[in-house]
Amino acid sequence: MGLKTKEEYIESIRALNPVVYMFGERITNVVDNPRIRAGIEATGATYELASMPENKDLFVTMSPLINEPVSRFTLPPASIEDLVARVKVNRKVANYVGTCHQRCTGLDCLSTLAIVTYDIDQKYGTHYNANFLEFLKHMQKNDLTGNAGVTDVKGDRSLAPHEQVDKDMFLRIVEKREDGIVVRGAKSHQTGSLSCHEVIVLPTRAMGKNDGDYAVAFAIPADTPGLIHVVGRSSLDKRELDGFDCGNIYYSKYCPTLIFNDVFVPWNRVFMCGESEFAVDMVVKFSSFHRQSHGGCKSGKIDCMTGAALTMMDYNGTAKMSHLKQKVIDMIHRAETLYGCCLASSYEGKKQPSGNYFIDTVLANASKIHEGKEMAEATRLMIDAAGGYVADLPSDKDFENPEIGGLLKKYLKGVDSVPVENRIKMFRLVEKMAMESADTISDIHGGGSAEAHRVTILRETDTESKKKAAKRLAGIKD
Amino acid sequence: MGLKTKEEYIESIRALNPVVYMFGERITNVVDNPRIRAGIEATGATYELASMPENKDLFVTMSPLINEPVSRFTLPPASIEDLVARVKVNRKVANYVGTCHQRCTGLDCLSTLAIVTYDIDQKYGTHYNANFLEFLKHMQKNDLTGNAGVTDVKGDRSLAPHEQVDKDMFLRIVEKREDGIVVRGAKSHQTGSLSCHEVIVLPTRAMGKNDGDYAVAFAIPADTPGLIHVVGRSSLDKRELDGFDCGNIYYSKYCPTLIFNDVFVPWNRVFMCGESEFAVDMVVKFSSFHRQSHGGCKSGKIDCMTGAALTMMDYNGTAKMSHLKQKVIDMIHRAETLYGCCLASSYEGKKQPSGNYFIDTVLANASKIHEGKEMAEATRLMIDAAGGYVADLPSDKDFENPEIGGLLKKYLKGVDSVPVENRIKMFRLVEKMAMESADTISDIHGGGSAEAHRVTILRETDTESKKKAAKRLAGIKD
Amino acid sequence: MGLKTKEEYIESIRALNPVVYMFGERITNVVDNPRIRAGIEATGATYELASMPENKDLFVTMSPLINEPVSRFTLPPASIEDLVARVKVNRKVANYVGTCHQRCTGLDCLSTLAIVTYDIDQKYGTHYNANFLEFLKHMQKNDLTGNAGVTDVKGDRSLAPHEQVDKDMFLRIVEKREDGIVVRGAKSHQTGSLSCHEVIVLPTRAMGKNDGDYAVAFAIPADTPGLIHVVGRSSLDKRELDGFDCGNIYYSKYCPTLIFNDVFVPWNRVFMCGESEFAVDMVVKFSSFHRQSHGGCKSGKIDCMTGAALTMMDYNGTAKMSHLKQKVIDMIHRAETLYGCCLASSYEGKKQPSGNYFIDTVLANASKIHEGKEMAEATRLMIDAAGGYVADLPSDKDFENPEIGGLLKKYLKGVDSVPVENRIKMFRLVEKMAMESADTISDIHGGGSAEAHRVTILRETDTESKKKAAKRLAGIKD
Amino acid sequence: MGLKTKEEYIESIRALNPVVYMFGERITNVVDNPRIRAGIEATGATYELASMPENKDLFVTMSPLINEPVSRFTLPPASIEDLVARVKVNRKVANYVGTCHQRCTGLDCLSTLAIVTYDIDQKYGTHYNANFLEFLKHMQKNDLTGNAGVTDVKGDRSLAPHEQVDKDMFLRIVEKREDGIVVRGAKSHQTGSLSCHEVIVLPTRAMGKNDGDYAVAFAIPADTPGLIHVVGRSSLDKRELDGFDCGNIYYSKYCPTLIFNDVFVPWNRVFMCGESEFAVDMVVKFSSFHRQSHGGCKSGKIDCMTGAALTMMDYNGTAKMSHLKQKVIDMIHRAETLYGCCLASSYEGKKQPSGNYFIDTVLANASKIHEGKEMAEATRLMIDAAGGYVADLPSDKDFENPEIGGLLKKYLKGVDSVPVENRIKMFRLVEKMAMESADTISDIHGGGSAEAHRVTILRETDTESKKKAAKRLAGIKD
Repeated sequence: MGLKTKEEYIESIRALNPVVYMFGERITNVVDNPRIRAGIEATGATYELASMPENKDLFVTMSPLINEPVSRFTLPPASIEDLVARVKVNRKVANYVGTCHQRCTGLDCLSTLAIVTYDIDQKYGTHYNANFLEFLKHMQKNDLTGNAGVTDVKGDRSLAPHEQVDKDMFLRIVEKREDGIVVRGAKSHQTGSLSCHEVIVLPTRAMGKNDGDYAVAFAIPADTPGLIHVVGRSSLDKRELDGFDCGNIYYSKYCPTLIFNDVFVPWNRVFMCGESEFAVDMVVKFSSFHRQSHGGCKSGKIDCMTGAALTMMDYNGTAKMSHLKQKVIDMIHRAETLYGCCLASSYEGKKQPSGNYFIDTVLANASKIHEGKEMAEATRLMIDAAGGYVADLPSDKDFENPEIGGLLKKYLKGVDSVPVENRIKMFRLVEKMAMESADTISDIHGGGSAEAHRVTILRETDTESKKKAAKRLAGIKD
Repeated sequence: MGLKTKEEYIESIRALNPVVYMFGERITNVVDNPRIRAGIEATGATYELASMPENKDLFVTMSPLINEPVSRFTLPPASIEDLVARVKVNRKVANYVGTCHQRCTGLDCLSTLAIVTYDIDQKYGTHYNANFLEFLKHMQKNDLTGNAGVTDVKGDRSLAPHEQVDKDMFLRIVEKREDGIVVRGAKSHQTGSLSCHEVIVLPTRAMGKNDGDYAVAFAIPADTPGLIHVVGRSSLDKRELDGFDCGNIYYSKYCPTLIFNDVFVPWNRVFMCGESEFAVDMVVKFSSFHRQSHGGCKSGKIDCMTGAALTMMDYNGTAKMSHLKQKVIDMIHRAETLYGCCLASSYEGKKQPSGNYFIDTVLANASKIHEGKEMAEATRLMIDAAGGYVADLPSDKDFENPEIGGLLKKYLKGVDSVPVENRIKMFRLVEKMAMESADTISDIHGGGSAEAHRVTILRETDTESKKKAAKRLAGIKD
Repeated sequence: MGLKTKEEYIESIRALNPVVYMFGERITNVVDNPRIRAGIEATGATYELASMPENKDLFVTMSPLINEPVSRFTLPPASIEDLVARVKVNRKVANYVGTCHQRCTGLDCLSTLAIVTYDIDQKYGTHYNANFLEFLKHMQKNDLTGNAGVTDVKGDRSLAPHEQVDKDMFLRIVEKREDGIVVRGAKSHQTGSLSCHEVIVLPTRAMGKNDGDYAVAFAIPADTPGLIHVVGRSSLDKRELDGFDCGNIYYSKYCPTLIFNDVFVPWNRVFMCGESEFAVDMVVKFSSFHRQSHGGCKSGKIDCMTGAALTMMDYNGTAKMSHLKQKVIDMIHRAETLYGCCLASSYEGKKQPSGNYFIDTVLANASKIHEGKEMAEATRLMIDAAGGYVADLPSDKDFENPEIGGLLKKYLKGVDSVPVENRIKMFRLVEKMAMESADTISDIHGGGSAEAHRVTILRETDTESKKKAAKRLAGIKD
Repeated sequence: MGLKTKEEYIESIRALNPVVYMFGERITNVVDNPRIRAGIEATGATYELASMPENKDLFVTMSPLINEPVSRFTLPPASIEDLVARVKVNRKVANYVGTCHQRCTGLDCLSTLAIVTYDIDQKYGTHYNANFLEFLKHMQKNDLTGNAGVTDVKGDRSLAPHEQVDKDMFLRIVEKREDGIVVRGAKSHQTGSLSCHEVIVLPTRAMGKNDGDYAVAFAIPADTPGLIHVVGRSSLDKRELDGFDCGNIYYSKYCPTLIFNDVFVPWNRVFMCGESEFAVDMVVKFSSFHRQSHGGCKSGKIDCMTGAALTMMDYNGTAKMSHLKQKVIDMIHRAETLYGCCLASSYEGKKQPSGNYFIDTVLANASKIHEGKEMAEATRLMIDAAGGYVADLPSDKDFENPEIGGLLKKYLKGVDSVPVENRIKMFRLVEKMAMESADTISDIHGGGSAEAHRVTILRETDTESKKKAAKRLAGIKD
């Protein structure tokens, strides 16, 4: 037990036996499937970085719960410092992997449950917090990775859960037994669900009085019977499977749809069960934490994208063009905006009744609103700076072909001092960062819809005090 | 001879025997390769639409050169009406195919050569215009498709053609023979080079006095000896090859790199040969025409994207959400902006010495500047409106799998009245339109770099008259 | 009779005797009040430009109604050429005066009435079109200027006209007499109401069945008894009154609130009276025409602003800075976008039953959506390029003061070759164009609210055909 | 001595006797001039707020230098907490006054000098830090306000200070005497120079070896002989002088040009004198601090603007319109972006050799880049939400006029429950916040040009590490 190395992490994932489908076929060896492995490697980077001496201070901290050093990815924040570390760790890992590392969502669930289970218990005298703390010990002692089972498939978006024609469109309790509950439903976009040991389920939205069966939270191993992971397609998914033209030579992302086909959850792993008025707390806390995780992460991804743009400029002979420098500045500006808002959101966090800390929601959502619009712009700028071969670069196989490889290398050459192979590789990385759907579309849809972020900042803002200030200056008394 | 049906067009392409590589392998049957075929089908749509009675008035017109009805795609504009039809035809075809139809570039070359060969002859007493008109007759009589061989690979961008370490980084004349010339070089991003009968080459930039060998224009069949088409990778290229998860069930785009490995061009097919000061005319005319073609085309693509967004809203139960309506308005606004600027560019066109018409460059470039930025935004809005499954929708193969297909269809269901299959198909189309690199990256890099469009409008604008107006109002005499 | 010179125009305005208040005081000599005069001069420029030989072709045309040459400002368009001239004339005048010339609104009313009075007559057998044509003859024969009385004060925006607590919040018929009607209400933002001869009133919105008394259109002289012009404040209004620090040494804008305090209108000047279902036609036609007028005009204003920015760069020694050139390009791009969309809107116009022509609404509104957002951006760019003294330049009086004038001139000097007086004057012009409220706020609120433009393009777009195109590509049959 | 009340502050300003011109006339009673007074009141608000018990914790802190409670506006930050308080205090005051409070610039100078004088002394063994600390004691003990004399008039921007034709275009030392130095030059945009007790001068840019006479820093009382304050024009300056239509009934802003007409500075008030290589440190530190001050301040101003927009929506009957809510969200988002980046810039501050703290420059500049673009957008949104009467509201004098006042009040009425007077007042406040040049143009030009902020973030960013990260992922070794 204790902190895992990357290798130990991968072996621990290998030990699981989940039910997985991809391209209509059953996958039995998850860890050695190159596509899924590229995602597991990205999560593995969180273990690798934590084990590097220069990162220990940032990535590893003492857990007051188990009195042992733990990874920050299993630590619900209990101080401002902890909140700040969230952002810095995410930026660092994202910059290292150039894509989603897939371990933030589990932490965001743990951070949420640490607060809300306590609050439910206070009101109802339940024991969810004790259940949660036991679960948390397990996560910390074994340095595990959690997956956030939050986004339901939702069916007809204009209807509440209990109004749906098919009642399973939001995950729900279909049976309560003496030893536990049975749940049914499906969760979409389960980033890295096969890179994780535990699936942690929270409700996806506020629940009304008639939606009690949908107000449920729990955690189960990723290979629990009844769980089916269907790895959906992403735009570049065949690249890892084929083993060439990958762009990012180490890492990638995949997002299964996760079906809960009447899955049993023992009571000691249940963290909410019918307390429907707390569903909104769960989802607001989780989504705020997660929108902030995005900000740290995506600023790190822009760092990579900026590095790629600058390198392409070096390779193309355009490093001194003033309009391209302006575009690089626009990229940096976007990264720092996400980072600044997220850091401030941490620094302005507040202690909660459970003793844990929660971030400033308005600032976290302010970051996510930028992300939802500006990552697309940062991507566009990177493509602009890199050049047109992001669209249609010949394959590695073409470059290796004896008849045309030489000609292609001749003609793909940029500045004389740079080997043509480097230019080709960097074009491929740019293509990966720009055109890989699983990661880029999370800029828009990750952490809830773009509109949700906007509604949140309006709801959480004290508009009355603003009106009052304006009225005073205008000389209006009322 | 005369106008071809779509079927005749495809058979005429089948009759060619070009040298083609893809994924490092030689492709001998181009027309039946599913990836290339999807592109050929898109060009085929220009023939199909022209043969529909309701489109004849727009797509077909009399050629004064051959006194026969011809497709507008082989007609250099000789009136304002012709210029206007360019925009309308492109919007219509793009809306029909939802991607690049790949036939505009050839027309843009013909339109350019009609003007500039005449001007060169006027100065030098050469016979390029006669050569061109013969070639044009051939194109018109056989209803052929041309490919624009314009974008050189460029090597080190900070150096002129003759300054490059490898002199072949811009296509050049390596030999002048009695019967013709021999050229060497490579052209990038040759959209639809295998969907065309003729490759038409123009210089990619202004040429200085020392760049005379690079000031060359000509046309040759797409299967001329020495020509090698290397079909590069695009993000979703495996989908057509695999035959599932295509999104757009009919059409796609591909962009070879085209190597001219010492290719012979007979004199009667040469349209410029060393008159370096006319290179700038060639490229300015071509790029203006082509930037305008983009505007018509991309407004048609946004039409499709808007239709897809609205349909997804119907399917998701979100059709009445005001924030989504606003996003649809933002999409429509972008389409109409491109369309408006391009139409105005046509309507304000001017007659040239050759009798042909040229568009207003400032307005054409104004459209392209919008395209370069706003297509990414329109795409982002479509993804936002559609929902997160653009990122990671399970494969058709998963839906067909007997063990999980039923569960997936259960959970992917949106509003009750819409078959789940339709929702899945529309998600896939959105993925295609958003994440297919060959088409989306042309929004940014097609028609020259984003900066080129900007520099053009500054250069072509009468800034002195603007200063004069301001000085008069300020009471400044000078 | 016939075309007026600028001087004749001003004398004809002098002959009127309207009731006017400004700063709480009655103004009896309108023409010699320097603030109002600056507005009258701007309208006068339309007469001046029309009388210059080089502009005759554009500004003057034959009226088929009176068989005499008339100003385009009194000509309802009867051809595509007429529609196009609207845009070009507006750009030209705006570039000449650097602000609103205040004569487009009357033309927009005439253009609307020419179409809609005919349509009402067709349905109801009324004689509004005959009334209108008599009025139009009067306008054309005397080369008069009309004012658009459209924008009602509106009261509580969440209520229809007949639901308002005070029934006069929209202008209405309070009495029908044998010889005419009596109307009551008030119209806001009556640009140039004292620079015009005739006030032309149209309804401001669609009217329901219960709003019949509000469905009224008519024209009356600007000094009709009961009409009260209250010239509101604008940000720089004291400058003209003081006679120094004006910036634009010739022209300005003012916008009265116009009160109709039980005003009598004879029947022969009534153009609609209770046909409530036609109110929407009136307002849609007028607002489309007027939003297009804005586009032509504001592109001309940006021309001036661009000239001012470039001149300031010359004066400051910053003409070669690449980031400022980029900002100038951004300004030009905005001007051309407005111009392009508006021109296309004209070229794509359609003949109406009356024989007159109407523009393409979607394209006209596309232009206005840009204006509403991008004029503020163009202004910001001009300020950025000009320098900080736009904020707080010392007064002409300071420069004239013998104790400090010399010091100020010493320190305000820019590049050595330019007299300091010129730099000071140009700063003042930039201040005027950037910070004068009457004109700049019309960018946002002129031609209806920003949201109205957006709703219009959604309503006028064929969304079903877009959905159909997307469904075909996705393989959906329904 | 000790903390001043607002009244004491005003009397202390009254005790000064500066040389002041406005509209070409000498002003002798500064404090009772209504235009200047409105600015003094804004600075006075910093004293007023500090004396309110609920603000003490934020506004007042112990000075380690004098061991007394001092205002944060005289405290160079010596901890992260101090840096954070800067942002919060500025937001609070700005929200309270709805314009610039004019006291941040002095603090930014003190904060800069605390760091840089120490560094110069370390290198040269000079005694600038001791001089500075004595001056600081004086400021703290008397709770004084400082003015930042930074922005030189600059002459020809393409030339360095010593290259200018007139050597005085940057403030310089013209004589060194035994008892002090004599300086000559002029500083532009001296926000609140008459609301302050001391003028603190720093260089405006980096200085080269030949610019030694320009590398000078010092502090002198605002009424030192030879100092001439010329209060320039701003767009609404006559409103305060006239005493009606002010909009903001308490506060305004004014920005003199400050001429140093051979001004004597005693040695004990000199903080730099010829150490030209430190000029860049001075200006980078000052401008970073000041750009951050802007962010705090302008987020507070947007708070007011948001309050005004929401109040106008209440008054107009448009509070439930979804498009207006979206615009309010856009305003809030902008405020929080500035606030977030500035807070993060403080929290990530670093200790300097002198013991003082300096902020993170990249984050401070990231905020300012947003401000330079987004304040104009926030303003536009406020105007959009408020309605067209921002442009041309009748004067208070019109509303008071017995003949038309009643009619105007009748027609300006919005929702029935709100007195028309309130609606009029709020329109006027919106006009003030939107159209007052002295404040709004500082959004663009305050804290240096927009381009300076951009260049700063590129220069201060570690681009090499970004390239390195990208190369690793692409598999490039170099």
